[in-house]
Amino acid sequence: MKVAIQGEAGSFSQEAARRLAPGCTIVPCARSVEVFDRLERGSVTAAVIPIENSLAGSVTEHFDLLLARKVFIQREFRLRIVHNLIAAPGVRKADLRRAYSHPVALEQCRDFFRRNPKIEPIPFYDTAGSVKHVIEGGLRDAAGIAGRQAAQVYGGRILVAGIEDDKRNFTRFFLIRKVKRIVPGANKTSIAFGLKNVPGALFKALSAFALRAISLSKIESRPMRGRPWEYVFYADFLRGDDRPARQALGHLGEVAEMVKVLGIYPAA
Amino acid sequence: MKVAIQGEAGSFSQEAARRLAPGCTIVPCARSVEVFDRLERGSVTAAVIPIENSLAGSVTEHFDLLLARKVFIQREFRLRIVHNLIAAPGVRKADLRRAYSHPVALEQCRDFFRRNPKIEPIPFYDTAGSVKHVIEGGLRDAAGIAGRQAAQVYGGRILVAGIEDDKRNFTRFFLIRKVKRIVPGANKTSIAFGLKNVPGALFKALSAFALRAISLSKIESRPMRGRPWEYVFYADFLRGDDRPARQALGHLGEVAEMVKVLGIYPAA
Repeated sequence: MKVAIQGEAGSFSQEAARRLAPGCTIVPCARSVEVFDRLERGSVTAAVIPIENSLAGSVTEHFDLLLARKVFIQREFRLRIVHNLIAAPGVRKADLRRAYSHPVALEQCRDFFRRNPKIEPIPFYDTAGSVKHVIEGGLRDAAGIAGRQAAQVYGGRILVAGIEDDKRNFTRFFLIRKVKRIVPGANKTSIAFGLKNVPGALFKALSAFALRAISLSKIESRPMRGRPWEYVFYADFLRGDDRPARQALGHLGEVAEMVKVLGIYPAA
Repeated sequence: MKVAIQGEAGSFSQEAARRLAPGCTIVPCARSVEVFDRLERGSVTAAVIPIENSLAGSVTEHFDLLLARKVFIQREFRLRIVHNLIAAPGVRKADLRRAYSHPVALEQCRDFFRRNPKIEPIPFYDTAGSVKHVIEGGLRDAAGIAGRQAAQVYGGRILVAGIEDDKRNFTRFFLIRKVKRIVPGANKTSIAFGLKNVPGALFKALSAFALRAISLSKIESRPMRGRPWEYVFYADFLRGDDRPARQALGHLGEVAEMVKVLGIYPAA
């Protein structure tokens, strides 16, 4: 089974893919659109994408792609994000003057940099890519900050493990496929819907769920691509493909301009 | 008047700051927390921060900082985002093999790269920073992609102007201050509120606005920092500091666990 991910080998997406599809072959893609293109073309069986981090928020590009493309969420997974200081073999922590990583990762390791003022944080475009950069460039005074799988992939050594400030750092990933298939135990639904910009529109839309005591676990308005300040809503609710859920979606369809079910899957 | 911004000189934030506070002195900060620290300490009079892009979505870190810190939104501004291909003087477009920029900017210039396959897009941590990198490094086969003010600041030449795919690309900026002051003409309010995770909680909260025919122009749930999958809501509604708005906020206060008014300001 071939599974597309966005980003370098050794990324958190790769780790999530190994957990969601054990034994799969990873196909790294430079950009998220390429991940979705490959899935729609059928050159991969599935894709694994990060959708939301408990500290940094939603990966908005992926919500927009789920809405635009003919794909379906089949599984959800929560990965605990652990950041590690990784350098070339033989390099000691005392040798370090710089640490590269994605700005979000650097921000999540602020206490480490406060305790180690000789190491300067340098923004880089990718976590696993920062380790690749340090190892392949033979740098002796620099480290990358990434998940432990990046050390394995690029032959780095973990100098300090778990340097993130907040241990309650999780990322939600989706396994998506081209075919719509609801696996047993599915008890959560992700939807997108569009509303006219009139007072009370969202209130009416949410009545579809509130009147049936269906819990929303997330809601977010996103600008519609190319239509400034018009909004599409992304919501998750805690029901699978059952009668109340179908009735709620029917009710929502009467109120909304557009409704798309992005996936029905077992809650992580 | 000293105004703090996040990012390099020459960034879109700098352009927004010049429009929101003409004649101000810009204080560039490496990180957003530093911007808020300076404002709270009083070492700057105001700060200008991007809050939402019409294509890329919310700047979630800034919403979280508006909630956590004692600051108040005083003005809103919409900046049209124009991306330009910028290189060192004397470099021609035909010389280029690489173009550096922030991944979001590269993604917004996909058609340009399709039409110019000899130029490879390379992710960089900042738009203006990519121009600085290219000019200060004396690169002859590379360009940066950024706003025109980056060309002025670093002495670059614009080889192609306006290479973004979608001209409906705007970013909303806020001018924030430590003091709470509502300027004349204020007709829009930004709030944050927290809800218990029970079915219908958001429906009840929104009734405060729907029953008074007050229009929401934005709503977004965000994970609460350090409390995985608990949510705070950010909303904008189209009223200033008038009686119905105060009544709606009072009503919301009965339903919500927490309500904070982030600012009351004239809609851009």
